[in-house]
Amino acid sequence: MMLQNPSSKYRAFPPVNLSARQWPDNAITRPPIWMSTDLRDGNQALIEPMSPEKKLRFFEMLVKIGLKEIEVGFPSASQTDFDFVRKLIDEDRIPEDVTIIVLTQSRDELIRRTVDSAVGARRAIVHLYNSVAPVFRKVVFGMTREQITEIAVSGTKLVKELVKQHPQTDWGFEYTPESFSTTELDFSKHICDAVSDIWQPTPHNKMIVNLPSTVECSTPNVYADQIEWMSRKLARRDSLIISVHPHNDRGTAVASAELAIMAGADRVEGCLFGNGERTGNVDLVTLAMNLYTQGVHPGLDFSDIDAVRQVVEECNQLPVHPRHPYAGDLVFTAFSGSHQDAIKKGFAQQKPNTLWEVPYLPIDPADLGRSYDAVIRVNSQSGKGGMAYLLEQEFGLSLPRRLQIEFSRAVQAVADASGREIAAKEIHAIFCSEYFDQASPYAYSAHKMVEDSSNDEPVQIDITLAHRQASLSLQGGGNGPIDAFVNALGLDIKLMDYHEHAIGSGANAKAACYVELRLENGPTMFGAGIDSNIVTASFKAVLSAVNRQLVRAEKELAVAQ
Amino acid sequence: MMLQNPSSKYRAFPPVNLSARQWPDNAITRPPIWMSTDLRDGNQALIEPMSPEKKLRFFEMLVKIGLKEIEVGFPSASQTDFDFVRKLIDEDRIPEDVTIIVLTQSRDELIRRTVDSAVGARRAIVHLYNSVAPVFRKVVFGMTREQITEIAVSGTKLVKELVKQHPQTDWGFEYTPESFSTTELDFSKHICDAVSDIWQPTPHNKMIVNLPSTVECSTPNVYADQIEWMSRKLARRDSLIISVHPHNDRGTAVASAELAIMAGADRVEGCLFGNGERTGNVDLVTLAMNLYTQGVHPGLDFSDIDAVRQVVEECNQLPVHPRHPYAGDLVFTAFSGSHQDAIKKGFAQQKPNTLWEVPYLPIDPADLGRSYDAVIRVNSQSGKGGMAYLLEQEFGLSLPRRLQIEFSRAVQAVADASGREIAAKEIHAIFCSEYFDQASPYAYSAHKMVEDSSNDEPVQIDITLAHRQASLSLQGGGNGPIDAFVNALGLDIKLMDYHEHAIGSGANAKAACYVELRLENGPTMFGAGIDSNIVTASFKAVLSAVNRQLVRAEKELAVAQ
Repeated sequence: MMLQNPSSKYRAFPPVNLSARQWPDNAITRPPIWMSTDLRDGNQALIEPMSPEKKLRFFEMLVKIGLKEIEVGFPSASQTDFDFVRKLIDEDRIPEDVTIIVLTQSRDELIRRTVDSAVGARRAIVHLYNSVAPVFRKVVFGMTREQITEIAVSGTKLVKELVKQHPQTDWGFEYTPESFSTTELDFSKHICDAVSDIWQPTPHNKMIVNLPSTVECSTPNVYADQIEWMSRKLARRDSLIISVHPHNDRGTAVASAELAIMAGADRVEGCLFGNGERTGNVDLVTLAMNLYTQGVHPGLDFSDIDAVRQVVEECNQLPVHPRHPYAGDLVFTAFSGSHQDAIKKGFAQQKPNTLWEVPYLPIDPADLGRSYDAVIRVNSQSGKGGMAYLLEQEFGLSLPRRLQIEFSRAVQAVADASGREIAAKEIHAIFCSEYFDQASPYAYSAHKMVEDSSNDEPVQIDITLAHRQASLSLQGGGNGPIDAFVNALGLDIKLMDYHEHAIGSGANAKAACYVELRLENGPTMFGAGIDSNIVTASFKAVLSAVNRQLVRAEKELAVAQ
Repeated sequence: MMLQNPSSKYRAFPPVNLSARQWPDNAITRPPIWMSTDLRDGNQALIEPMSPEKKLRFFEMLVKIGLKEIEVGFPSASQTDFDFVRKLIDEDRIPEDVTIIVLTQSRDELIRRTVDSAVGARRAIVHLYNSVAPVFRKVVFGMTREQITEIAVSGTKLVKELVKQHPQTDWGFEYTPESFSTTELDFSKHICDAVSDIWQPTPHNKMIVNLPSTVECSTPNVYADQIEWMSRKLARRDSLIISVHPHNDRGTAVASAELAIMAGADRVEGCLFGNGERTGNVDLVTLAMNLYTQGVHPGLDFSDIDAVRQVVEECNQLPVHPRHPYAGDLVFTAFSGSHQDAIKKGFAQQKPNTLWEVPYLPIDPADLGRSYDAVIRVNSQSGKGGMAYLLEQEFGLSLPRRLQIEFSRAVQAVADASGREIAAKEIHAIFCSEYFDQASPYAYSAHKMVEDSSNDEPVQIDITLAHRQASLSLQGGGNGPIDAFVNALGLDIKLMDYHEHAIGSGANAKAACYVELRLENGPTMFGAGIDSNIVTASFKAVLSAVNRQLVRAEKELAVAQ
């Protein structure tokens, strides 16, 4: 038991001294400036960072979605990132209305390298940061407030000096007091003012001040208070773009961003589907679609959310959760009967070009390019994952993905007919009857095989099959057992895929084999076999697939007649 | 492009008319009453609802965590749920300090059945709901406010009448105006007051009024305004427990719950890791641990979060996302070098029994029973998932899970030595050298096999192996090819697992085979083989595993000497 009281180890986050708080009376009526840091903060937090090809693919997708500010890397920290930025510029891959951002710590050699990486871009923002919170000053750097301020100021001076040498690029500047959320507000103001005093932004040439919740450390209203405090007190406010960069340690990054916009933030940095260090950055998809459902066009296009999700999942190698707002597999699916009923009635009464009023659905799935299938045909969605899980957990059968899909139709047919829950045992019984026990017209009886790997056609086989009332004896040769078996059958078979695995271990172990094949230009279908001998299991699987096709063809013929 | 402006289809949620708003000045200083609806709202939203065994396992875990209020089902809607509630009561499985909740719609026969399900419990709460929002009144029911109120009132009367007949149970009552978040506040107050007027709660015998965001439809501050409005205006406030039940359609359920508590809510309904209809309910784990990190003991025990996660994942058959706050695989892992450096310094300076001050880590992983491995040995975490992904995507190799783990150590050794990113090609090369190419001391040369399935020992084999400089010819028999091969080898081998699959299709297809085996009481190790013949691939895999063990044993012997 967690008996110890946490009060000696953790402390409540102190409230912000903010008189006449404004933000709770505000609403968000226009989108913030969006900045994607998928290729920087997101990328650096991946188990396997993206390859240059993936980075490019992701960049082009961000452009297509409508991002106008894209942080493309941390060029001084990684040769891969440096090369990627150069590639974008040298190959002229950045659209005219898109600005790239390059991140750097505030250290001389890193700043020089960073500016070098972006030289020649039409427009680029140098994004300088240093960490300013007490724990960093004390534990990590051992420096005073003055010394920390000097790091930011001298870095800003160097950026200003360097970019002047490359006037062909339109340079912007962004400063981040890292760990802002746990820093004393007066010090954050002090250091941001010191930096803007060097950069000298104007209302026509603004500087970005980015105030991150590097670690989310309070309820989101406190972060909003911090942003409102800064927005009121910062010098040169009309020459600044206040940006937020919320992390999700407390699961409230989306709320933090929304309340911060209400509190005065002009710009949000985040990642698609909330990728980023640890718990991730704020999810730009959710933020944008939240605006959309309030009638505010976010300026980002997620009208084909599944395509976006596919690219992100492939590049990040991280899944989007089934319950992720707007994009998860289950978010438009109602399993409860009363929900289904209300949704059906809502759909029936919903008229085109009127306010969206379908119970339980905060958005029309069609606006995200998603179909109504998952909503209305709820039962047809039931159980594919569940079935596969049950067969594996309870019977040791590990079905290949495409077989899962094929098999789900068979289960669905039974579920629809019976109208009730299908238990694991029943699913197993359906699988056996649909695959393992498909022993007609061809049933395996026995085989003899001679294999000599020194021969050209090393495997020679002699099989005995039951076929209707007869016993067949067939011979064939091939490169391997399945090849020889298929040749012996003498049918037009194209083997598409093959999987086999053990069930159990030791003397009682069996092998389950799954094959996908095409018979005489028919559709590809699976068959499955089980046996203590891996070769026999594979033969049975081939016959199972062949039989299923023949049975199906006979049925179709019967219907046609 | 999403060119259409959403303003004709969606509208901003109207603000709440709340003068002298209090909640933004409040902080959460004690935990709410927690209510788990995992076995009801969570369960009904699963692809495969839980079996009675899983429900019981989940219930017992909830009790262990410290939940005192557990919604155990919707007994009138499902025989499974009814039986489960009876089982809990009849088998006396409910601890004395735990109250069960049973949900019912406000319909006569359903209420009767629900009360029946809970008769005999020491204490039970009947949870009555009906939907009250305009869209439901109009689209789903076609009823007036009065008619909707009458549904709630008559249901409450019936519950009151029925429970009087079973005085051996201590009955509580909860009323939910479903879809509260999209209902006019004055009507919500009206219907809740009408219900409490029937129930007649007292300060010593309170009634629960549960105000759900059935669909999350606004920024979380608006929900807080709604709760503060209700908390101020409801009749008999001192005899009510105000409860919230936030859904996560806008990704802000945690924030909604937190701000609602600040606004006066006494109780929160949710699920572990945010399961529930569509985007899920608020996550009780995140809420509890958010309190914990503010020095407030939540009264729930998540000191072994991985064990809790395992049960939930097995029961729900839904994953916890790698970036899920507090529980995800990646949330304590820093991949960035500067983060790693700061964390290391923080750990070094952190003293026992003092305030937690480690940069980037909002909580000590040990408080959740998680190790520091993922944090400090960042590189040892790199790439297991990534490696498997790359081998499958780029080389068609689908490694069994335990082999992924074993192989990751081999890759790590190379990564540590080189200190740089490892490309897919290199991973493949490492896999080949570690598994496929392990041809010493034993190398496969050829085999002859005779198989006659009518024999007792149907497979007879004659194998030729290269062994150091010699050529070996061995014979053996068995039930299947692998069995015969192992017997022919004459070594003490126990085969633990076997997987085989095709790479490609048609004439060029090959089979990759993976076996896990134990040699002479050594550790279990994998071997892998690849060949156009499935049998030959399996023989190579066995030899690969045997060779790897022998090489390892030789090395250990050399070190010992």
